[in-house]
Amino acid sequence: MDLSVVFVGTAGSVPTARRGLPATLIRRGGDRILVDCGEGTQRQLIRSVGLTDLDVVFLTHLHVDHWLGLPGMIKSFELRDRDRPLTVYGPKGTEEAMRAMRVVTGRPRFGLTVVDLEKFEEIDFGDYVITAIPARHRIEAFGYALVEDDRPGRFDAELATARGVTPGPDFGRLQRGETVNGVAPEEVVGPDRHGRRVVLSGDTAPCDPIRIAAEGADLLVHEATFTEDERERAMQTAHSTARQAALLAEEADVRMLALTHVSTRYGGREIKDEARATFPNTVVPRDFDVIEVPFPEKGEPSLVRDGARPAPA
Amino acid sequence: MDLSVVFVGTAGSVPTARRGLPATLIRRGGDRILVDCGEGTQRQLIRSVGLTDLDVVFLTHLHVDHWLGLPGMIKSFELRDRDRPLTVYGPKGTEEAMRAMRVVTGRPRFGLTVVDLEKFEEIDFGDYVITAIPARHRIEAFGYALVEDDRPGRFDAELATARGVTPGPDFGRLQRGETVNGVAPEEVVGPDRHGRRVVLSGDTAPCDPIRIAAEGADLLVHEATFTEDERERAMQTAHSTARQAALLAEEADVRMLALTHVSTRYGGREIKDEARATFPNTVVPRDFDVIEVPFPEKGEPSLVRDGARPAPA
Repeated sequence: MDLSVVFVGTAGSVPTARRGLPATLIRRGGDRILVDCGEGTQRQLIRSVGLTDLDVVFLTHLHVDHWLGLPGMIKSFELRDRDRPLTVYGPKGTEEAMRAMRVVTGRPRFGLTVVDLEKFEEIDFGDYVITAIPARHRIEAFGYALVEDDRPGRFDAELATARGVTPGPDFGRLQRGETVNGVAPEEVVGPDRHGRRVVLSGDTAPCDPIRIAAEGADLLVHEATFTEDERERAMQTAHSTARQAALLAEEADVRMLALTHVSTRYGGREIKDEARATFPNTVVPRDFDVIEVPFPEKGEPSLVRDGARPAPA
Repeated sequence: MDLSVVFVGTAGSVPTARRGLPATLIRRGGDRILVDCGEGTQRQLIRSVGLTDLDVVFLTHLHVDHWLGLPGMIKSFELRDRDRPLTVYGPKGTEEAMRAMRVVTGRPRFGLTVVDLEKFEEIDFGDYVITAIPARHRIEAFGYALVEDDRPGRFDAELATARGVTPGPDFGRLQRGETVNGVAPEEVVGPDRHGRRVVLSGDTAPCDPIRIAAEGADLLVHEATFTEDERERAMQTAHSTARQAALLAEEADVRMLALTHVSTRYGGREIKDEARATFPNTVVPRDFDVIEVPFPEKGEPSLVRDGARPAPA
């Protein structure tokens, strides 16, 4: 099951020539989940992976740089005769904000549902959940944790064969927990393995709920609006410095840290250098970069630069 | 006095990878006038001429692809501590739409004035006016005509000298209409010359008011959403085909025709070829292209491709 994160817009509150306003696309199998949707996100999608027919949008908070692209995108879905319904989740006030945007969107024919989430509320996607993690910002803000269900343990086919089980349907029975020819499943199937975990912090000062949600995560996407020389300002505005994000990643022991929400004052390198001094496996994605998140036994998370992919048609 | 038109966004209702949503910047001397402001316009400006401190925005009509970039741009002006006031003009309903957007913009500290214009209402900019020309669209829509005041006629310095006037202050007196040493101004100063005229159609089916406003214009920026094979659809949606725009340009005898609001189905070449068969001096600007509009005696209007200018820093 493929799992990847596309960095659709990596700027802070104001866009730059290189960085669009906040938007991150999670792709898992056929699911397309957008987290935040700053102004211009529909075009950022068109310029990269296409104007994906998203099923779900999660908003981290209601500062306008994080959601003002939503009304226009909904309008474009209408123009494209979309018929799949769309659900928008966000903190308290999301429903009210989207209601105020009806002057723009009307009531879309495809069916738009808007849901205000509670802290730690969990949305079930079948074999994974997405949970709203309370972040620490100037207004109510959530990070989101995508956590896959545990997977069955590793099946030792060689050992099972040696114990006299014939490869074929009997292997499946053992893996589903049945005893076969006196061989118990726990003899040839290892303990359950954790599913993958991807956590996005949204806008936040360093905080415990995000750190706890990120424990052992395969990928933590954390904001790093500032560097340490602006630590005071980061505190005042309830944002994080690159070093703070790196410390949190280290404490949470994540596999990879991706920093985003970069202030216009930085090119990206200062952010990366500062974070790597504390947490070496840090990347600062550019717009349209992708991080692939394989199962641990298949390899490490890796950043694929936009330039490495073919240009959109 | 420099006069140029920057094509900030040249798409129709949905953006493409290459074309942003509608926005056109008129630069005259130090004045910066934006006509329409589709979603993403602030970033298009940042990617080209910079997030200009506009004094005035004119909206052609209230379809969202033409104004949804305004709330976010106003928000960014606030973040940049702008203090110059901003006036937004548009057809009836503009004030109401901007009032509905207060959930996004609040009441900007720099002072935002929104004015619903009447048909043919004229805004005076000192030595030029901008007039709201009623277009023909599915909802009330304006084109805008920028018309400079007449300029004094050409002064024949050689003739004046031959008639015994001394170069210097006396030349100025003649040009201001005083008789000097028995030489009457009309003997050495030609008739008043027309100022320049730039007309933007906004979204419209071909219509008389735009044609009349464009009579002898230096530049007509006209929409061409479709080609002739979609003429029926153009009629139904109250848009124009490239050929229709070219015919109108020919009848109005403009110096140059620039086509914009190109539907996603076209690359631009089909639009250009179709129009040029009728009106050869047609261009189809790409985003960030600029048309310079000199006084007629200084040269022809000319399209400067974005690539010909240095990349923004």
